[in-house]
Amino acid sequence: MNHTPDNLLADFGEVRRHTLSLAEPLSDEDCCVQSMPDASPIKWHMAHTTWFFETFILERFESDFQPHHPAFRVLFNSYYNGIGEKHPRPQRGLVTRPSMQEVLAYRRNVDERIVRLLSKGKPAGEVAALTELGLQHEKQHQELMLTDVKHMLSINPLYPAYRNASLEAPSAAASSLSWQDFEAGITEIGHSGGGFCFDNETPRHRVFTESFSLASRLVSNGEYLAFIEAGGYADSSLWLSEGWDWVRNNQLAHPFYWRNTDSEWQEFTLYGLQPLDAARPAVHLSYFEADAYARWAGARLPTEAEWERAAATMGEVAGSINAYRLHPVAAPAVDGLCQLYGAAWQWTSSSYAPYPGYSPAEGAIGEYNGKFMANQYVLRGSSCATPARHTRVTYRNFFPTGACWQFTGIRLARS
Amino acid sequence: MNHTPDNLLADFGEVRRHTLSLAEPLSDEDCCVQSMPDASPIKWHMAHTTWFFETFILERFESDFQPHHPAFRVLFNSYYNGIGEKHPRPQRGLVTRPSMQEVLAYRRNVDERIVRLLSKGKPAGEVAALTELGLQHEKQHQELMLTDVKHMLSINPLYPAYRNASLEAPSAAASSLSWQDFEAGITEIGHSGGGFCFDNETPRHRVFTESFSLASRLVSNGEYLAFIEAGGYADSSLWLSEGWDWVRNNQLAHPFYWRNTDSEWQEFTLYGLQPLDAARPAVHLSYFEADAYARWAGARLPTEAEWERAAATMGEVAGSINAYRLHPVAAPAVDGLCQLYGAAWQWTSSSYAPYPGYSPAEGAIGEYNGKFMANQYVLRGSSCATPARHTRVTYRNFFPTGACWQFTGIRLARS
Amino acid sequence: MNHTPDNLLADFGEVRRHTLSLAEPLSDEDCCVQSMPDASPIKWHMAHTTWFFETFILERFESDFQPHHPAFRVLFNSYYNGIGEKHPRPQRGLVTRPSMQEVLAYRRNVDERIVRLLSKGKPAGEVAALTELGLQHEKQHQELMLTDVKHMLSINPLYPAYRNASLEAPSAAASSLSWQDFEAGITEIGHSGGGFCFDNETPRHRVFTESFSLASRLVSNGEYLAFIEAGGYADSSLWLSEGWDWVRNNQLAHPFYWRNTDSEWQEFTLYGLQPLDAARPAVHLSYFEADAYARWAGARLPTEAEWERAAATMGEVAGSINAYRLHPVAAPAVDGLCQLYGAAWQWTSSSYAPYPGYSPAEGAIGEYNGKFMANQYVLRGSSCATPARHTRVTYRNFFPTGACWQFTGIRLARS
Amino acid sequence: MNHTPDNLLADFGEVRRHTLSLAEPLSDEDCCVQSMPDASPIKWHMAHTTWFFETFILERFESDFQPHHPAFRVLFNSYYNGIGEKHPRPQRGLVTRPSMQEVLAYRRNVDERIVRLLSKGKPAGEVAALTELGLQHEKQHQELMLTDVKHMLSINPLYPAYRNASLEAPSAAASSLSWQDFEAGITEIGHSGGGFCFDNETPRHRVFTESFSLASRLVSNGEYLAFIEAGGYADSSLWLSEGWDWVRNNQLAHPFYWRNTDSEWQEFTLYGLQPLDAARPAVHLSYFEADAYARWAGARLPTEAEWERAAATMGEVAGSINAYRLHPVAAPAVDGLCQLYGAAWQWTSSSYAPYPGYSPAEGAIGEYNGKFMANQYVLRGSSCATPARHTRVTYRNFFPTGACWQFTGIRLARS
Repeated sequence: MNHTPDNLLADFGEVRRHTLSLAEPLSDEDCCVQSMPDASPIKWHMAHTTWFFETFILERFESDFQPHHPAFRVLFNSYYNGIGEKHPRPQRGLVTRPSMQEVLAYRRNVDERIVRLLSKGKPAGEVAALTELGLQHEKQHQELMLTDVKHMLSINPLYPAYRNASLEAPSAAASSLSWQDFEAGITEIGHSGGGFCFDNETPRHRVFTESFSLASRLVSNGEYLAFIEAGGYADSSLWLSEGWDWVRNNQLAHPFYWRNTDSEWQEFTLYGLQPLDAARPAVHLSYFEADAYARWAGARLPTEAEWERAAATMGEVAGSINAYRLHPVAAPAVDGLCQLYGAAWQWTSSSYAPYPGYSPAEGAIGEYNGKFMANQYVLRGSSCATPARHTRVTYRNFFPTGACWQFTGIRLARS
Repeated sequence: MNHTPDNLLADFGEVRRHTLSLAEPLSDEDCCVQSMPDASPIKWHMAHTTWFFETFILERFESDFQPHHPAFRVLFNSYYNGIGEKHPRPQRGLVTRPSMQEVLAYRRNVDERIVRLLSKGKPAGEVAALTELGLQHEKQHQELMLTDVKHMLSINPLYPAYRNASLEAPSAAASSLSWQDFEAGITEIGHSGGGFCFDNETPRHRVFTESFSLASRLVSNGEYLAFIEAGGYADSSLWLSEGWDWVRNNQLAHPFYWRNTDSEWQEFTLYGLQPLDAARPAVHLSYFEADAYARWAGARLPTEAEWERAAATMGEVAGSINAYRLHPVAAPAVDGLCQLYGAAWQWTSSSYAPYPGYSPAEGAIGEYNGKFMANQYVLRGSSCATPARHTRVTYRNFFPTGACWQFTGIRLARS
Repeated sequence: MNHTPDNLLADFGEVRRHTLSLAEPLSDEDCCVQSMPDASPIKWHMAHTTWFFETFILERFESDFQPHHPAFRVLFNSYYNGIGEKHPRPQRGLVTRPSMQEVLAYRRNVDERIVRLLSKGKPAGEVAALTELGLQHEKQHQELMLTDVKHMLSINPLYPAYRNASLEAPSAAASSLSWQDFEAGITEIGHSGGGFCFDNETPRHRVFTESFSLASRLVSNGEYLAFIEAGGYADSSLWLSEGWDWVRNNQLAHPFYWRNTDSEWQEFTLYGLQPLDAARPAVHLSYFEADAYARWAGARLPTEAEWERAAATMGEVAGSINAYRLHPVAAPAVDGLCQLYGAAWQWTSSSYAPYPGYSPAEGAIGEYNGKFMANQYVLRGSSCATPARHTRVTYRNFFPTGACWQFTGIRLARS
Repeated sequence: MNHTPDNLLADFGEVRRHTLSLAEPLSDEDCCVQSMPDASPIKWHMAHTTWFFETFILERFESDFQPHHPAFRVLFNSYYNGIGEKHPRPQRGLVTRPSMQEVLAYRRNVDERIVRLLSKGKPAGEVAALTELGLQHEKQHQELMLTDVKHMLSINPLYPAYRNASLEAPSAAASSLSWQDFEAGITEIGHSGGGFCFDNETPRHRVFTESFSLASRLVSNGEYLAFIEAGGYADSSLWLSEGWDWVRNNQLAHPFYWRNTDSEWQEFTLYGLQPLDAARPAVHLSYFEADAYARWAGARLPTEAEWERAAATMGEVAGSINAYRLHPVAAPAVDGLCQLYGAAWQWTSSSYAPYPGYSPAEGAIGEYNGKFMANQYVLRGSSCATPARHTRVTYRNFFPTGACWQFTGIRLARS
């Protein structure tokens, strides 16, 4: 982390403004409700990201600190037991007061105080580091704001759009899928050197991988449709045991946002309900679906070491990053690997676990990542909803096996 | 029901406007969320009461009927299977679209069309009767709007007030409780003659009651507190078996809206959190609590026949109706029965059942009352949240034994 | 209750032996398991009925009382909070120790001590009364033993029989259904005079009933099948709201013990799976089913006052009681009312409530009946599983609206 | 697998007889019930292991195959979707018929037919391989029989013993814990060469491990008690997020089989309730508990690669295997690693996943292991309940993070 005060201040303003811009297409009602315990209201995201700066920076480094509102410490604490009590997660959508206007005022107040603190000469190392962490944290919530609101809109029988614009016309076809080969050997993965990273990306360490091949692009809607039409959701032999229970208990026959009306497939997007575009990548797939598809296709999911090694070695082909279009586009016809970033997070077969020698930060901030390292799987890359400059080859996203409200897709591997 | 077109039109305007006025202290956020499946959002109430007029009157009697929005027929259907599909009840709070503004436009549109229909000469019998039913229906929802929003605000750790005004100072004391005696005999209960009533109040019929006495007023907070302090919530012998399970499973030790902080009792009201006023009636009690208190007090709950016979015979003493103050006041010192109306609904020991010879209306409208006649108990009188002119001695309200988010209290009886 | 010591001793021996005989067709395994929380294992019934004598008689009246086993006081307490802790009801089937042999030894030990107590000169009033209550209590459990084991066997895909004998050949047809008419008037119901009764049958008191008619016999399987074939389980307008939820949530299309294989209807009985006999009464129906059938048939369920008045007035026609055949037989062709007793309990529309002036016994024994007086409905008559001499015109059985593992059927009424 | 027919036949007889011997201390009742969905009745284990031989061997290789009972194919199928329908797992304890005697007859019948098949000259490769698999399968169930019946007995408030013998007197103290160090490097793990293994142990492959140290023995009861007394169950910072929810939701303050009465710690064992012996290893710990203890102790759990590498390198010290004593004994004072086998399974931090190049068998038998490779963690070693000759350095046991009814303990590691 080598931020000078200047670009930290500029970054702070930019990130905080971007959060506001994400709420612009939405009404106060849209911002208030919570469609499931996993998702949070937009207003809550706006308040919680502010709480993060207030609690971890102002409370420690501001002289004569006074909380903006004494109740907010509990109300907008997400999961930090080290901070104290938390408002129950499933009740986040019942908080109509403070109002959206009061939360915006909360943001402005904390913004001013953070700017004041950062402007007092060169920020001390810890203030700067925590500010940077707060901004990265807010970027994570920016992506969640989009996926959470998408889920909420999808529950509405009117299928309202987040963005009232038209999605581009269907692509002719996905580019053909090729395989990139890698030899067996020891390599290093994990973050090192300059620039920000989360603690779960460290320490950089050695791993051995047997030889493997990685698909050049993500699985497309058309390919996934073939899996459905081949009876994929009715064949227990393709699924993990828990995955098969998940299919049966939820009576699933297609991805979460797909709808089949009058024999026409449609897909709910942030642009509303749209005809399914066969060339675009299949998204909002659970780990179970990704794993079953891979088995059906005679392949498997990559490990995170394989993914990182391949991505670090070959890099993303030029021009293939789909910058923040709110829905991924079809893969370009290029050599090498594409759609590593900016399309959809890619499930790996790696359980989310600490790297050898991993050590979380001291205190409540140490709860940021480490305590979630069980019963979740690592996703790599980034998605069309990931904000700008929030992409790293070492980035480890993670979700439970049944989660499918994120932009999550499939990149195949084989031995 | 003998409405001339004139006062029906005037009533229509007045009732519809009153619904709007109830939402005035609330933000769009407040009006959108749902705090539990039993309660509905304010916006939903506003749309559903409009749907009632559109579906049961306009759809049948308007020539060239076009629905205001084709999706609303399902979205705002509450429980009428005869109409068709219904949006799932627990998801009413996720409907951020249509927005509050769109629902207000829906109201205005249906209002105009109903007024046009009613203004075309003298309304035909069925149109007038259904309009009257729609208005009575809307008045029921007006009461629910207040109790539902009270529940939602009570979940908020900030304990916001619905009405930003001060509750009157505590009364000195509740008036003393006396007993009114009634001889054994056959009497008639149920509605007859002119004026509106719901179908469940008919037919008027004969019942035999043994001699009984009825308390002159409702049980007060102070009296209920004595029950708590005597260990009422810890003594299984006072409770019905299901009631005891309810107490244990929910770990209850006091009424739903009471809070004990620093050994001070407070009560959440529509005016926010207030010191508990010993003289006011105890409200928001479940059937289980009412039954247990009565047993502890050496009394019992009245049957609905006893209640109606007493109320019909003696009437409410002058000046005792607490007109719509949003929280009940202490009983006045008077002879006879008081607090029959306008304070709190009074649990009876009568299971909600059809009167001998009861017959529901034909078609979907027949689902209004009859299909709920099992596992619910009748409440009599009316509450401080009941709208004006919505009170009848024959009125039968009903709720399940565990419900306590209504203004429900206790009037004792004994044999 | 005027028992002389002699017949009380004889009754005691007879009732206790009959309980043993009910377990004779069963293995220790059959007697141990519990197929749902509502049902109890045979072994538990055998121990609990013994516990009743030990706890309510020996503990109070035996000098130098020592418990047979100190842990049994908790282990075999059913629901008496006044006695103390209880083993959790859903875990009754996990108690493999004490073994069946140990429970039989427990029975023998308590039997000997009770006989010794009863043989010490003329039993004091309370000892005799409690002994009589214990025997009536045991008879209630004898019926439950049959219905509980039937449920357990029905869960087994092999459909084992309790009684390895053949059910009689199907009857030609049910006798035709006629209606018995009764005039409006005040009558008395409830128990009075000599002989045993439960406290919930008292006090005898006056009721007014409007004129009504009662069906001469129970609804037959053939009649109920017509309801099914007319789409009864798919027509929401026939059902109470809660009943319709019950049908949908459990995906019901026929009574609980009916099976439809290869377009043939079969019924699970204590004789195993048998072809459905159209002439026999339809049994194992819930309140919801009874109510829906009655509505479809243009009739209604009787109140308990109507039932008792009719049964007390006309009595059972000679020879119609089906003595303990473990499955009800077809109604005989007779004038008047038949199948009042010995076929199936008959749902009434009366919620289970205290009679005017009802007062439960003091102490834990007062929990026997009174605390269950909410959210249950009264059934009248008796069933093919009711033991001998356990039938009274004033008897009030009661179950929740969804219960269907008892022999419960339908007698129609109309106004 | 290089079995000659002779020792295969001998093994078959020995393993099948051992299963019978495990049921000897139990009554038919003990063998019938199921105390939770995760556990199965003893009788079910006896039938299912027989079903395995009947379905996978007799059905394919016996000429003129006739099932012993046509219903058993469904009734005793555990989880093989490829075979067809399965009796619902939570209802295994309701199957009182077939009786224990009938299941024993089923075993004898299948035994005879398998012996006949194996005796027809030298068994063909597949028959021999499947027989061997069936025996290994049965050995796994032998361990489950002990842990499942232990769970069932522990639910019983009488705390009955499986083995009516006394556990040895408490050891003086556990031997001191030392650390064995290993250098970073590539090693191989997984099974190769002769002898039986499960498919999940293959293929043998290379892994890289950084340098690490492994504890010489398991964590003792005394050490675990220190964790409890230091407030381990009340300190959220020691637990994974899911683990903390697990502690709170289940209100846990100690291991599953520990009881604290009158300030004395006791432990439920197969010998009944026993005073807690500080020197014996702490067992029946969940992954969450193992992980939290390790964090508190300033250590971590080993990966399965670390465990296997250490165990393969150093081996078990002589004489330390606790042969089948039904409760683990204290660690001997020796140099090197002890308690690798025969005491308690040891949680690793490795999620259960396929080895690189893993491929399950064709057909239903391929469901044996592979489909469980998600959301479970690998345990290594073996326990005091593991049958003789069922121990391998490459053996991979696996359970979900909350499971604690197996003999599962903690071996610490550190980097």
